Amino acid sequence: MTWYIRLWKYITLAHGAGGKETEELVRNLIVQSVPPELWKVKGGTGLDILDDAALIPVGENRYIAVTVDTYTVKPLFFPGGDLGRLAASGTINDLLMVGARPLAVLDGVVVEEGFPVEDFKKIMDSFINTLKEEGVALIGGDFKVMPKGQLDGVVIASMGIGLVEGRPIVDTEVRPGDKIIVSGYLGDHGAAILAAQQAIGAEMKVESDVKPLTRLMLPLLEKHRESIHGAGDPTRGGLSMLLNDWAEKTKTVIVFEEEKVPVRPQVREYAEMLGVDPFSLASEGVAVLAVEPSKAQEILEYIHSLGFRDAAIVGQVYEPKDPRHAGRVLLKSMAGGVRILEPPSGEIVPRIC
Amino acid sequence: MTWYIRLWKYITLAHGAGGKETEELVRNLIVQSVPPELWKVKGGTGLDILDDAALIPVGENRYIAVTVDTYTVKPLFFPGGDLGRLAASGTINDLLMVGARPLAVLDGVVVEEGFPVEDFKKIMDSFINTLKEEGVALIGGDFKVMPKGQLDGVVIASMGIGLVEGRPIVDTEVRPGDKIIVSGYLGDHGAAILAAQQAIGAEMKVESDVKPLTRLMLPLLEKHRESIHGAGDPTRGGLSMLLNDWAEKTKTVIVFEEEKVPVRPQVREYAEMLGVDPFSLASEGVAVLAVEPSKAQEILEYIHSLGFRDAAIVGQVYEPKDPRHAGRVLLKSMAGGVRILEPPSGEIVPRIC
Repeated sequence: MTWYIRLWKYITLAHGAGGKETEELVRNLIVQSVPPELWKVKGGTGLDILDDAALIPVGENRYIAVTVDTYTVKPLFFPGGDLGRLAASGTINDLLMVGARPLAVLDGVVVEEGFPVEDFKKIMDSFINTLKEEGVALIGGDFKVMPKGQLDGVVIASMGIGLVEGRPIVDTEVRPGDKIIVSGYLGDHGAAILAAQQAIGAEMKVESDVKPLTRLMLPLLEKHRESIHGAGDPTRGGLSMLLNDWAEKTKTVIVFEEEKVPVRPQVREYAEMLGVDPFSLASEGVAVLAVEPSKAQEILEYIHSLGFRDAAIVGQVYEPKDPRHAGRVLLKSMAGGVRILEPPSGEIVPRIC
Repeated sequence: MTWYIRLWKYITLAHGAGGKETEELVRNLIVQSVPPELWKVKGGTGLDILDDAALIPVGENRYIAVTVDTYTVKPLFFPGGDLGRLAASGTINDLLMVGARPLAVLDGVVVEEGFPVEDFKKIMDSFINTLKEEGVALIGGDFKVMPKGQLDGVVIASMGIGLVEGRPIVDTEVRPGDKIIVSGYLGDHGAAILAAQQAIGAEMKVESDVKPLTRLMLPLLEKHRESIHGAGDPTRGGLSMLLNDWAEKTKTVIVFEEEKVPVRPQVREYAEMLGVDPFSLASEGVAVLAVEPSKAQEILEYIHSLGFRDAAIVGQVYEPKDPRHAGRVLLKSMAGGVRILEPPSGEIVPRIC
């Protein structure tokens, strides 16, 4: 009996929320049990970095990037998308975030007995069409059915394979001085799902931002790969989790300014109403980048030219003045104050992605 | 509205049983929707072959093999193994069956809220220990929780990555003349799960055969790669599904002899009692090989020397005398008769793997 079993007797929704508890559970129950020599394939990355995708070397400056995610979103069809589009986009984005070109996807699908075939076909068509639009192959998969009452709806496990040619983008390369860029409005997916689950979607007028970021990331990597030190998509736990993760991994301090972060007024109001931080709401079609400061303005303008007109420079990475501050994220609020933005914890919203 | 929607209004357990209905559903609702140029990465394999793993070329005679499966077995702990060992073994075996050396695994885990942490840890330890024993890395994953009542227990999606150096083993290379070898007793996993689900496990005295086949396949590939034309593990749908699949893909006729196939007496009796074909019961630690006839005896003896003492030559692949017979599997029964062994259909047993 070790300490975590004493602390946690049962799995809670918070363990699956993608915040602090998820990280603790994964570190204590999984990473810790794997001997460090099996955290990665030699010359690559894996549990040592816990990035959006793992890397396996396959030649001089060439890596295969691999990622797997399970998608359990509820409702299966939501404003702006559905489970299929979510799974395909999420997988493609995880590959892009390590600097890979997405090549192929495999899907493991589990469906509840009695689920309507027509709805299932809609979900699969949406999954496949998203891949088709991006020229990503579907090369295999698995299909299982669980008896009625043993699963609610459909779960898709989506596995992606990409190719990195040149320098991979790994989170641990984020460094003091880097400017933080976000590619668009934050929190739309989280707000849309929350509203749909609480059946107040109609008034909210916000749609999920779910989309593959291929058209942003491929040209950007082509032109500015060397100046991009970190890239991530702020899904579960939102911008808040992502920046805390970077600050923690690189022992830096990241400061960002509330007024510069693009958040839709209705998303901000809705978050306030619910008492949740808008920066911990998930996005499913936004990239967050840490870039070379001297190139930040040029990169931002290039991102605008690619059609991502709401992109903005929202913050900066610093060397901690006091080593005890390493790993902190600071938020300069609109009112003028500065506060520590803790990584989100507790149950934010179940089945968000 | 196309024909399959008219035929099937709702997903049934048979769709997930790994037999005829699974194949029809996957072909009609998934493969058919993907344009053929996206069935594989150029130079590799994917939906065109639907083998145990897909192949992506990464250099001269080098391929990355990738596979994904979801594991939903019930009960989570069963005689001879548990969900964790099943997921790790199944993934490793899928890679071995295309001639790959397993390199790494990623896992996507979905757990029901309220699941005991101690049981979850047992499952994950078993998953990780199986990988450790085989020197396979765990390089990433995902963790989600579904609210109480929306999932029964734990589902693991397991993704494997392997490296093929030299000729990959693809099902479509099975050819007339090939001898069929099985590496051990068939149907133990299926019988053990069925018995556990029906709470008659104690009398049955059969344990699941779940295990990685690394110690069989790696030496065998090293020594006899060129003589192995096909390899597969008879999981859902058993030997019957696997041989039907090979015969169908290669337009051959496969004949095997009941008395030569190693099946434990209690498994045979149990299958008879339930009215199921013992050859459609799943194995999770058996390889089926199609090998060059002139090498078959030598290969069999080598397999015996590796510790798989129950391995046997059980059949042969033939050119069909009449093209209308292409794709058939024939069983010579102990009583002396010959019958067509159809691919299994209907609900064999839900949540077998």
